[in-house]
Amino acid sequence: MEQNIADSAAVNLFTINNLWMMMATALVFIMHLGFAALEAGLTQSKNTVNILFKNSVIPALGLITYTVVGFSIMYPGEAFAGSFFGFAGFGVAPGELGLTKDYNVGYTYWTDFLFQGMFAATAATIVSGAVAERVKLSSFLIFSLIFVGVVYPVVGMWKWGGGFLDSLGFYDFAGSTLVHSVGGWGALTGVLLLGPRVGKYRKNRIYPIPGHSLPLAAIGVFLLWLGWFGFNGGSVLSADPGLVSLVLVTTSLSASAGAIGAMVTSWQFLKKPDITMVLNGILAGLVGITAGADLMNPLEAIIIGFVSGVIVVFAVIFFDKVKLDDPVGALSVHLVYGIFGTLVVGVLGDKAGLGQLWSQFTGVAVIGVFVTIISFLLWYSLKKSMGIRVTADEEHEGLDFSEHAMEAYPEFEKVR
Amino acid sequence: MEQNIADSAAVNLFTINNLWMMMATALVFIMHLGFAALEAGLTQSKNTVNILFKNSVIPALGLITYTVVGFSIMYPGEAFAGSFFGFAGFGVAPGELGLTKDYNVGYTYWTDFLFQGMFAATAATIVSGAVAERVKLSSFLIFSLIFVGVVYPVVGMWKWGGGFLDSLGFYDFAGSTLVHSVGGWGALTGVLLLGPRVGKYRKNRIYPIPGHSLPLAAIGVFLLWLGWFGFNGGSVLSADPGLVSLVLVTTSLSASAGAIGAMVTSWQFLKKPDITMVLNGILAGLVGITAGADLMNPLEAIIIGFVSGVIVVFAVIFFDKVKLDDPVGALSVHLVYGIFGTLVVGVLGDKAGLGQLWSQFTGVAVIGVFVTIISFLLWYSLKKSMGIRVTADEEHEGLDFSEHAMEAYPEFEKVR
Amino acid sequence: MEQNIADSAAVNLFTINNLWMMMATALVFIMHLGFAALEAGLTQSKNTVNILFKNSVIPALGLITYTVVGFSIMYPGEAFAGSFFGFAGFGVAPGELGLTKDYNVGYTYWTDFLFQGMFAATAATIVSGAVAERVKLSSFLIFSLIFVGVVYPVVGMWKWGGGFLDSLGFYDFAGSTLVHSVGGWGALTGVLLLGPRVGKYRKNRIYPIPGHSLPLAAIGVFLLWLGWFGFNGGSVLSADPGLVSLVLVTTSLSASAGAIGAMVTSWQFLKKPDITMVLNGILAGLVGITAGADLMNPLEAIIIGFVSGVIVVFAVIFFDKVKLDDPVGALSVHLVYGIFGTLVVGVLGDKAGLGQLWSQFTGVAVIGVFVTIISFLLWYSLKKSMGIRVTADEEHEGLDFSEHAMEAYPEFEKVR
Repeated sequence: MEQNIADSAAVNLFTINNLWMMMATALVFIMHLGFAALEAGLTQSKNTVNILFKNSVIPALGLITYTVVGFSIMYPGEAFAGSFFGFAGFGVAPGELGLTKDYNVGYTYWTDFLFQGMFAATAATIVSGAVAERVKLSSFLIFSLIFVGVVYPVVGMWKWGGGFLDSLGFYDFAGSTLVHSVGGWGALTGVLLLGPRVGKYRKNRIYPIPGHSLPLAAIGVFLLWLGWFGFNGGSVLSADPGLVSLVLVTTSLSASAGAIGAMVTSWQFLKKPDITMVLNGILAGLVGITAGADLMNPLEAIIIGFVSGVIVVFAVIFFDKVKLDDPVGALSVHLVYGIFGTLVVGVLGDKAGLGQLWSQFTGVAVIGVFVTIISFLLWYSLKKSMGIRVTADEEHEGLDFSEHAMEAYPEFEKVR
Repeated sequence: MEQNIADSAAVNLFTINNLWMMMATALVFIMHLGFAALEAGLTQSKNTVNILFKNSVIPALGLITYTVVGFSIMYPGEAFAGSFFGFAGFGVAPGELGLTKDYNVGYTYWTDFLFQGMFAATAATIVSGAVAERVKLSSFLIFSLIFVGVVYPVVGMWKWGGGFLDSLGFYDFAGSTLVHSVGGWGALTGVLLLGPRVGKYRKNRIYPIPGHSLPLAAIGVFLLWLGWFGFNGGSVLSADPGLVSLVLVTTSLSASAGAIGAMVTSWQFLKKPDITMVLNGILAGLVGITAGADLMNPLEAIIIGFVSGVIVVFAVIFFDKVKLDDPVGALSVHLVYGIFGTLVVGVLGDKAGLGQLWSQFTGVAVIGVFVTIISFLLWYSLKKSMGIRVTADEEHEGLDFSEHAMEAYPEFEKVR
Repeated sequence: MEQNIADSAAVNLFTINNLWMMMATALVFIMHLGFAALEAGLTQSKNTVNILFKNSVIPALGLITYTVVGFSIMYPGEAFAGSFFGFAGFGVAPGELGLTKDYNVGYTYWTDFLFQGMFAATAATIVSGAVAERVKLSSFLIFSLIFVGVVYPVVGMWKWGGGFLDSLGFYDFAGSTLVHSVGGWGALTGVLLLGPRVGKYRKNRIYPIPGHSLPLAAIGVFLLWLGWFGFNGGSVLSADPGLVSLVLVTTSLSASAGAIGAMVTSWQFLKKPDITMVLNGILAGLVGITAGADLMNPLEAIIIGFVSGVIVVFAVIFFDKVKLDDPVGALSVHLVYGIFGTLVVGVLGDKAGLGQLWSQFTGVAVIGVFVTIISFLLWYSLKKSMGIRVTADEEHEGLDFSEHAMEAYPEFEKVR
């Protein structure tokens, strides 16, 4: 009898944890809408259909790919247990509780798969923004397929699958490196091989190409912040009250401080309070806290966020100075803060210390070198085989016309 | 003492289930924003205020109607228990736990009512999209009132209220038939009696009338996908970890495969990867899995979604060929996949079999005939009495001007 | 052993409550996007960047301010316990469960802080809408800083911190007075000292200045309704099934009835069914039920909502008649229904009675007088020192240009 009672409490706890992880999954899903809105808002209206298309297809491709190969590569301990596709979940009959003891004591395989799958797709979305407005759709989709299906899970396995970086003591709570800098390196190589948009850099001057809808961009950032409740909060992998709520606090405080840092910096140095910088500041704060969201106290979270918000302004300027054309600031946010956020785990918070800093540096470097090489090879093969860039004419007319024969806003008169 | 301990575990489970059902309710609520954005995005800007008006008022009308009559009709066992309006919840004093044993062991009446009420309103919203851009507002509101208040709950009672279709073994997990095809038949009769928009079909040619904002449409589809986490996930009627998380997996995989199916098909047959087809593919996958989301394994979910995504492209073309003018593709998505999704329960998954297929067919046919007749009579009476269509002049000027004397975007210059 | 079992049930309940409060926090967070979209949609496109900027920075400033001072002022019992900043949470080591018994038995300090902090920022957002299109950014930010950091928590302490209004029997479940009318009074004094927008009132005639995007406004209202699930539902401060689900029902029914009330009234008196009135009706219903959402039954909730929806139409007309220029209707919604919703607790529901009505009146009056005086002094000092209004030229060109040197929609041709 007592045993039964104890069991029912265990079942309840399992149910609670699973419930939180499902909600976190829904929140991470909504990040895909956030990215779609942000990228569409920060680019020209003649490329909006293309952005929406990529960002609608990526989570779909990502989930299917992750089912077929990604999940198995990333968590190989369970990989080929009774299933052709390797997705361990296939072996579980629908309706079974899935109280598996071997691997995942906190929630069902189904939830685990879906949460991880939603995560996986974000890595490709980060690339999407950086190569926007000139990348060829077909090539981009092939790149994404391999990036989400193989590159991301291989790297993920090194840490979250219990691989060698995990053994080295590398720490990355929710993926500053494993998600954001992975996406960032993929973006960097793409930008390098694609070159800048026509007309962006002429005679050593920078000609800004403003985005067509700042409300869309703001909607995107708010939804990303919301989604980060699940991205970081769900990375606790249970509903543990102290830990999850701490993570939500550090996440939100870092985002807030990022907004303030970017506001102050843009007001001071660019003379005007710049909404795109504030939005980037929020994202920088979010990415910056991601690796150590469970290790920081509120004050440390505010410091991390504020520094992120200040530096993001200069990062955006820097990438433009070196003519790495990144329409939505994906490099400034995801690459820079993916690295910064990972390293700061060695400087602030519960794990701070030289040894940890070295582990963090190792992780950043190993993953950076690996993803850069693979991504470069991928982009390069695509460039040599089918091409990765639309023609100058197509770019001028807009990808919506050349790639989709469609307009995002057919009724509104355009200035240009 | 042991009894008390056992009780506290039961209370905890009740609380968890209720919590999930409340979150599912919130997610279904957000589908109304999804529909509003999707329909507004896929129609002309001169009818946007009208769309927003209908979609803001429908959930409001729906909830009030459901309070007054719908809930009682649909779940008659509890209907007239101590309350004038029939809403059983009225009898429960605020603050009471509502651990009712008779009918609803898993969560409170309040939650049950709100979840079901949010569901009910979606049926009318489906109609809204199909009759958009020419229906008379007042007539549409009267139709919706009766449709949500009486037609939907009567049909719902046949299955979910324990009626004769339930006894026949008809299976409809979350409403492919009970919600989507019910809305679809209501839409079909409306489209038939209204006729196409002026200028859509001339001299045996089809003149596409593109929607005015694809970002709005994409926002709508993402929010609908998000809402389906609650629509299907909540239809488990508890937070059962295995079942709910399976349902979320099959739902998301079917939506993903629908996107891929529609992408491939439109790229192949229409020569261009069509964003509106991809968005419809996602919705087709979602509606298609809805009747059997708890019965399929991931592979079956992917098959259902992919087939849905492929066929939706041809369904859209078909309805245009037969001159059934449906501005947002509501028939192609909700009617076709409402039927398909219901029948597929007899072909794939845990209940597959000829007997089940026959039950499914019976349910589809009975409900189809009933809703079509009632909807036809409703639309027909309205047509003969107060009219259901605005004048050609009003249609040309746009319903925003004629019905609301207002513009959705008063500042932007229009091409047309 | 039995003790342990009992403990695990208690831990589970704590975890469930904390989970719901975290979800409620996320929902309240999304209200900030709701406000941003609503305010941007109801104002001119030349001020959109400014609106987005304010509404992105306010939650950030609000959370930081609330960390540093607000939380301590509002809940002083815990305020200076071992922490310089006063934020009690600072004293809790990351990872600790935070099962504190003294103050907050239901969930962690972290969750408490974040939920309350998200709440706090909404008060300033209400002001933002009323003073839009002519307020100077820097002055507004300073006002907001003090308003959120000091004024709101001081008043909040009087009731929710166990202060003198709580002792007097004043009841305000989720903040009709403590949040909405506090924001409303701050807005009223701002509007008074700013004066109307240029050209709004000329020769005793009212020249409406329509908002530039009704889809944005509708998105905003739907997100606010969604957010209210957390705003009111979270104010139960636990996942108590009966109470939370009752609150969600009364909240949604009041919003629904508000929509219907405003539809009927605008159709009858303005001759056209007005979408902005329906949207305001929803918000009026939401604010109106907020003070007593846990005390009303469904019928009472419908009555409150319907009356709110009817009166809001006249309130909007009234404020225009007395030349209080409020671009988004913040006074009509938050001030009027903040007061109405608080008083109605003495008229309908479980606490109805003359004594209660008097307590409610006292609370409304005391807080009204206090916030009005402080806000007036704040706005007045700002006006005399740095000015609170942009120049007529800047107002004409739009705040996006003068304050931010940026356009919200640089590509679209404008009519004006």
